[in-house]
Amino acid sequence: MKKVVKFGGSSLASAEQFKKVGDIIRSDEARRYVVPSAPGKRFDGDIKVTDMLYECYRAAEKGEKIAGKIKKIQARYQEIIDGLGLDLKLDEQFAEIEKNFIAQAGSDYAASRGEFLNGIVMANYLGYTFVDPAECIFFEDNGNLDGEMTYKKLAERLGGIDHAVIPGFYGSLHDGSVKTFSRGGSDVTGSIVAKAIHADLYENWTDVSGMLVTDPRIVDNPAVIETITYKELRELAYMGATVLHEDAIFPLRQEGIPINIRNTNRPQDKGTVIVESTCYKPAYTITGIAGRKGFASINIEKDMMNSEIGFGRKVLQVFEDNGLSFEHMPSGIDTLTVYVHQSEFEEKEQNIISGLHRAVAPDAIDLEADLALIAVVGRGMRRNRGTAGRIFSALAHKHVNVKMIDQGSSELNIIIGVENRDFETAIRAIYDIFVTAQL
Amino acid sequence: MKKVVKFGGSSLASAEQFKKVGDIIRSDEARRYVVPSAPGKRFDGDIKVTDMLYECYRAAEKGEKIAGKIKKIQARYQEIIDGLGLDLKLDEQFAEIEKNFIAQAGSDYAASRGEFLNGIVMANYLGYTFVDPAECIFFEDNGNLDGEMTYKKLAERLGGIDHAVIPGFYGSLHDGSVKTFSRGGSDVTGSIVAKAIHADLYENWTDVSGMLVTDPRIVDNPAVIETITYKELRELAYMGATVLHEDAIFPLRQEGIPINIRNTNRPQDKGTVIVESTCYKPAYTITGIAGRKGFASINIEKDMMNSEIGFGRKVLQVFEDNGLSFEHMPSGIDTLTVYVHQSEFEEKEQNIISGLHRAVAPDAIDLEADLALIAVVGRGMRRNRGTAGRIFSALAHKHVNVKMIDQGSSELNIIIGVENRDFETAIRAIYDIFVTAQL
Repeated sequence: MKKVVKFGGSSLASAEQFKKVGDIIRSDEARRYVVPSAPGKRFDGDIKVTDMLYECYRAAEKGEKIAGKIKKIQARYQEIIDGLGLDLKLDEQFAEIEKNFIAQAGSDYAASRGEFLNGIVMANYLGYTFVDPAECIFFEDNGNLDGEMTYKKLAERLGGIDHAVIPGFYGSLHDGSVKTFSRGGSDVTGSIVAKAIHADLYENWTDVSGMLVTDPRIVDNPAVIETITYKELRELAYMGATVLHEDAIFPLRQEGIPINIRNTNRPQDKGTVIVESTCYKPAYTITGIAGRKGFASINIEKDMMNSEIGFGRKVLQVFEDNGLSFEHMPSGIDTLTVYVHQSEFEEKEQNIISGLHRAVAPDAIDLEADLALIAVVGRGMRRNRGTAGRIFSALAHKHVNVKMIDQGSSELNIIIGVENRDFETAIRAIYDIFVTAQL
Repeated sequence: MKKVVKFGGSSLASAEQFKKVGDIIRSDEARRYVVPSAPGKRFDGDIKVTDMLYECYRAAEKGEKIAGKIKKIQARYQEIIDGLGLDLKLDEQFAEIEKNFIAQAGSDYAASRGEFLNGIVMANYLGYTFVDPAECIFFEDNGNLDGEMTYKKLAERLGGIDHAVIPGFYGSLHDGSVKTFSRGGSDVTGSIVAKAIHADLYENWTDVSGMLVTDPRIVDNPAVIETITYKELRELAYMGATVLHEDAIFPLRQEGIPINIRNTNRPQDKGTVIVESTCYKPAYTITGIAGRKGFASINIEKDMMNSEIGFGRKVLQVFEDNGLSFEHMPSGIDTLTVYVHQSEFEEKEQNIISGLHRAVAPDAIDLEADLALIAVVGRGMRRNRGTAGRIFSALAHKHVNVKMIDQGSSELNIIIGVENRDFETAIRAIYDIFVTAQL
């Protein structure tokens, strides 16, 4: 059994947090490959080490003295080292970093030192081998991961090591210079490592006890999702839910490796498991609710449009010619509505209207702005008849006017269009009916 | 006040029916322009006069003797004339018809004689002027109405006549030969006459007390729709409701002339009024329910399809290239479903699947057949929050699995996809909740 465990910055901000992480790792001998982030904020208003490094490097670029700033950063690590009672000095590393900063080694190099140093501390603390990702994670010159070389080298390097610490967030270009991930950071490193060693599980330890059913800014203290499929996750993420970046999910989805999102501060919580597919019955009929404001709808009316072959295609062609992608296209008999992002639409509004007139000669075009889309997502909806009924009854009860309904054959989600001002009310109503009332 | 009144074949099948029609016309002096059909069936198993004429003409085409058949047709009219106690002989007309049949005057001419003769009887019975539509309704050689000439001639001819009978169903080509309407029959004549004389109302008298909320083969004795807009009518008709043909509605919609569908056998019933728009509050939240079986859905999955500009357009292009129009295209986040007519799709299935693979390289394509679409239509739905909730609760209660939901910005209808086998159950459930229970 092999688990890759990744810890976020807040899990490694102080010696106290390091000890929690140590306890977690030592409590399960399968936790053999550890991916640490750089130390995060210890308290509100604190500065992350990565931000200190950026600031220090900017000073170096301007030719300013940086010895004082370097010393401050080293103090952050020394505080952790001392707190853990380790016999470890980072003087040599900091001297080299200072030299490279002055030699303008690049901001990617600068940023990556937070993880690099934390990896050294972590390896020392755990007694694991330190593996520098600059030697086994590679990028193409265009910034994309060189997957072929990376997975080959990682498998080779880690194949002979039972227990290793591999810092997150960076690798190297083929010329050897350090390059960071442009999106997803250390989560992506953990995911790549898990894929490379064919891990049984990828644990992603953060400061929340998993993914929440909905946005905690809208619903107080929402329930945690126990199990979610990649597909559900992708749908919720698309609609604005904060989760792992797509780039961190993609390598694992390819391999079918589950992800467990856990809370370093509450290791007793089971967190959220993200899986390819599962028979595990969800706790509630729905898995999650997410949504976004800021859509506009273009409602096109034309008598007998259904008998015009190519009508819908011509409408979409106009949007495409204007570089706009559409979100949904619900249709009645003689009406067809296109939902787009309002901000993208506004600047092209008149071009699109005149384009539609030329393309399909509609009887009427109506625009409506300030709309929100809400996705109610859940593999359990297929099994539970009446989900749609409960949603729309709940919305009616809260006086929410439903502008659009869209449910395709996947039966995995229902998309609902409401006015922006009804957005929070609608999400709360749906949450209450499925989670609070457990209907 | 000018009303055009059209009577269907069953309203004019016998002298008894003629008397009801006479009473109706005489009870309102605005009923000044009468459009009769040919005599219909007097009883189950009876033959319509039009069918007798077709059969007689086919015999003439084969060179058979037709004197006996002509005599039988004349007897039908004589029975009406005698029953009404009129001093009218049709010998001259029948002699000319027999001559023209033998001279192969065409099947349009043959069919039209049913209305022509009934118009003569009706004019005589009412004391109205007989106007032959061959002299004022004109067709282009391609069979389309020559609207410009028709409306000009009709207005001229009827302008000087206070009370006229204009038989339905036919007019003439520019060479003078008789031509019948290919669709919609006498209903279209009534509509054209109403438009030509700028009528205040077009009354269409039949053997039902108006349009029904839903199909009487599915729901026993459904309620009558009191008022319906052209838009609602069009939507219900598209989904299979039996109503006036589009060609009979189009001229009136242009002019905003209301249509009143009435029952000759129950003139005390108000029937259904079809209007351009109305403030009249509908009796029920919904105006009507109609639907059709025989759809298939093509469910296309692809990760990140939403971020691919042109995805939807390319999908529809494949259907268009195969000559298929789509009915609805609901979409989730990474899924997009296209509903098409199953019979049209089946023969092109593999072409479309391979076309989709080439066009958008989907992750998966799933097909589902034997689906039905149901349209719940009603201008009242906009005013009544919770319509969708009630529909889907009712369907869940009856164990109907909802495969698709589509409601655009028009809020005039909700389209629901179900399996063919759930079709009748679903319609009954929706009818019961809105009409029987009046929720």
